[in-house]
Amino acid sequence: MDKAKSMMDQKGSPGPCYTNGVHKAFRSQLSNGAGGPYSPGGGGGSGGSGSGSSGSHDGYHHLHYDPQTNGTNGSPAKRCRLRRRVDSLKKNRPPFPWFGMDIGGTLVKLVYFEPKDITAEEEQEEVENLKSIRRYLTSNTAYGKTGVRDVHLELRNLQICGRTGTLHFIRFPTAAMHRFIQMGRDKNFSSLHTTLCATGGGAYKFESDFRTMADLELLKLDELDCLIHGLLYVDSVGFNGHPECYYFENPSDTLNCIKRPYCLDNPFPMLLVNIGSGVSILAVYSKDNYKRVTGTSLGGGTFLGLCCLLTGCETFEEALEMASKGDSTNVDKLVRDIYGGDYQRFGLQGSAVASSFGHMMSKEKRDSISKEDLARAMLVTITNNIGSIARMCAVNEKIERVVFVGNFLRINTVSTKLLAYAMDFWSKGQLRALFLEHEGYFGAVGAFLELLKSSEDP
Amino acid sequence: MDKAKSMMDQKGSPGPCYTNGVHKAFRSQLSNGAGGPYSPGGGGGSGGSGSGSSGSHDGYHHLHYDPQTNGTNGSPAKRCRLRRRVDSLKKNRPPFPWFGMDIGGTLVKLVYFEPKDITAEEEQEEVENLKSIRRYLTSNTAYGKTGVRDVHLELRNLQICGRTGTLHFIRFPTAAMHRFIQMGRDKNFSSLHTTLCATGGGAYKFESDFRTMADLELLKLDELDCLIHGLLYVDSVGFNGHPECYYFENPSDTLNCIKRPYCLDNPFPMLLVNIGSGVSILAVYSKDNYKRVTGTSLGGGTFLGLCCLLTGCETFEEALEMASKGDSTNVDKLVRDIYGGDYQRFGLQGSAVASSFGHMMSKEKRDSISKEDLARAMLVTITNNIGSIARMCAVNEKIERVVFVGNFLRINTVSTKLLAYAMDFWSKGQLRALFLEHEGYFGAVGAFLELLKSSEDP
Repeated sequence: MDKAKSMMDQKGSPGPCYTNGVHKAFRSQLSNGAGGPYSPGGGGGSGGSGSGSSGSHDGYHHLHYDPQTNGTNGSPAKRCRLRRRVDSLKKNRPPFPWFGMDIGGTLVKLVYFEPKDITAEEEQEEVENLKSIRRYLTSNTAYGKTGVRDVHLELRNLQICGRTGTLHFIRFPTAAMHRFIQMGRDKNFSSLHTTLCATGGGAYKFESDFRTMADLELLKLDELDCLIHGLLYVDSVGFNGHPECYYFENPSDTLNCIKRPYCLDNPFPMLLVNIGSGVSILAVYSKDNYKRVTGTSLGGGTFLGLCCLLTGCETFEEALEMASKGDSTNVDKLVRDIYGGDYQRFGLQGSAVASSFGHMMSKEKRDSISKEDLARAMLVTITNNIGSIARMCAVNEKIERVVFVGNFLRINTVSTKLLAYAMDFWSKGQLRALFLEHEGYFGAVGAFLELLKSSEDP
Repeated sequence: MDKAKSMMDQKGSPGPCYTNGVHKAFRSQLSNGAGGPYSPGGGGGSGGSGSGSSGSHDGYHHLHYDPQTNGTNGSPAKRCRLRRRVDSLKKNRPPFPWFGMDIGGTLVKLVYFEPKDITAEEEQEEVENLKSIRRYLTSNTAYGKTGVRDVHLELRNLQICGRTGTLHFIRFPTAAMHRFIQMGRDKNFSSLHTTLCATGGGAYKFESDFRTMADLELLKLDELDCLIHGLLYVDSVGFNGHPECYYFENPSDTLNCIKRPYCLDNPFPMLLVNIGSGVSILAVYSKDNYKRVTGTSLGGGTFLGLCCLLTGCETFEEALEMASKGDSTNVDKLVRDIYGGDYQRFGLQGSAVASSFGHMMSKEKRDSISKEDLARAMLVTITNNIGSIARMCAVNEKIERVVFVGNFLRINTVSTKLLAYAMDFWSKGQLRALFLEHEGYFGAVGAFLELLKSSEDP
């Protein structure tokens, strides 16, 4: 962070733009639409791309430039004052484009802010490069062979640094990082003089490649700082009028297990379990006070890597699709396979897994199972292991709220429900598993927030 | 345990035979040879079968029947007293053969006490069945296709219940259990009226099979009770004059990492990590005061099951042999693969595993690795996961001694050294990993001890 600051000092951006204060500050200053956590003008939780900004320019702080007011109303003096204010704001916020990037072990997560309040004048002044980037990102939902925009996640009518726009969520495999950097070079990205805020291990690993290949300097940020800041921010602005956070009611009852919104207004302390390629577990006591309790290398990368080896699948989507159709009890040795029933003395039900993949040492059993069974067993094994470690941490840290994030949970209701069940069952109802709609994007959002925060550095 | 007692009540064995008291009682009353923990007359830690009982009949308690004294020395009155004593002892101890059995998820562990002090008279009186069992077990080191006697583990010159003999250690796959029961039927084992003390899940699962197929009643015992009692007993008698317990000096230095004896005279509190098909972790405060802290289903069965699937191997030995030749860093994604170096802020070295099997989502990487690499990565993954969970438990329970047992550790120095390193490194030298020579046999020994203990029930 010190390094980040010193880099910005060199650029000398003056004055405040967006107050990255305590959680409540997020909620009041950075909210979309009507000043509350959830904009009543926002759309539903999914679908649609790049629309919905009309009618919500009058945000809470009125820090943004309103073209209608400027163009048609007010005295010459008022227009002059407004123009000066706009100019000042322009100076106090970073130049477009606004990005935040999280370069993980498996996926790069990119958030991009699309301003929806661009004036005709501004559009005229906009360099072609910038326009081209905006059009490319917002008019496509897929980029190259592997880049994807998660349209259903976009945050609309977002007011930030006096601008109104849409935050877009894009991901692509880290394996394509060099192609991405080349694209940055080909599009002459460095001419835009934007700051590329990046977090995740790749911010360090690819730093010199960005410099040498594309003449781009990264502002490197710690991934756990970004994760927490991004999470608190997204929860505070809400998900287009809907809550970001949810839990499962009746997690122990598969038939009546229902997704419910959860109010994360008072989030501390929380145990934050970030399941990416590997897993980090944090005890978070406030926005800037947290510790990394532990981690495990058995994460999403383990699930996907072993699924590829065992089933011949190629993608996370394929692996999950197979897992959804499989039966792990053909693969795992359960307590009842060893005991003939429950191990009552220590409260282990017969249906509990005693040995993951324990049946697979038998050739006969290996010959009788399907790829789908293997994928399901792998998913259950990795998920239960994470759940068990998280539960131990929660008990030790005396924290009841366990928030699970990370792209392992994307389109993965098997794991979310299993985690909800595991937290509830093994803690006898003392712990609650919480989930967030933007699963794996908080690091990128946190990096994006740093870009804006950097403007307030003297 | 109540059930165990009530079964013995029906048999009505009177008077004490062997005092299963506190740990110190083990050490003083049940030791071999010269009364100390390790008999100076005992042989080395390995090799040899069924020999070595000569010259050590004068044990600590002189409870045994000495044929030489009886046959050649003393007055008729003295001989008469001795004979009465022997008769009394005969009544107070269970009839031969003496077995203890632990029927686990993967392996059945069997301990068999071979009396070496049999008199000519006793041999004459011995029924053919009993003789045949003794000869079969002691003259072979392999039984059928899959049974193995671990000759290097036998405990010689053991004095127990007034008899001197050798404790043999035998194992076979649980999958062969029905063949074993059939053999019991064919050899008319039930005619011997011995009590079959059995622990492990299989004692419950196979109970009715023993009854219906071979007319045998099991005395079922809890596996964790047996584990602890067996462990304390074996440590107290020592390993043929050598210590049972060891640790690794300089665990963080692969070149100078040396196996050293450890004195477990004051074993409490200890964290006991039993790695079988699955894993149980106990906090043990005294012989009879312990709790099961947690467990994980990712154990030896997971390692072997996944190795069979990934490499086509068939046995634990094959899997370990492959693992010894492989390189897990071709399979796992390390911190440096993601960060380009260390993740300094949270003390994660570049060489630490960030995502187990994380490279395997790339087809290119999959095409470049060997089966040996996969086996090694599987071993490292399972071992590190267990180590990490054990370390968390040790910290939470404030216990410094972490004792690892179970057959996963058999012929598995990769895992023992890795566990020793992990405990030392991540606790900054606060925790010590301990290991025991008889790895997976303590449950069976504990069951065996219950057979003898049962004689003291009123």
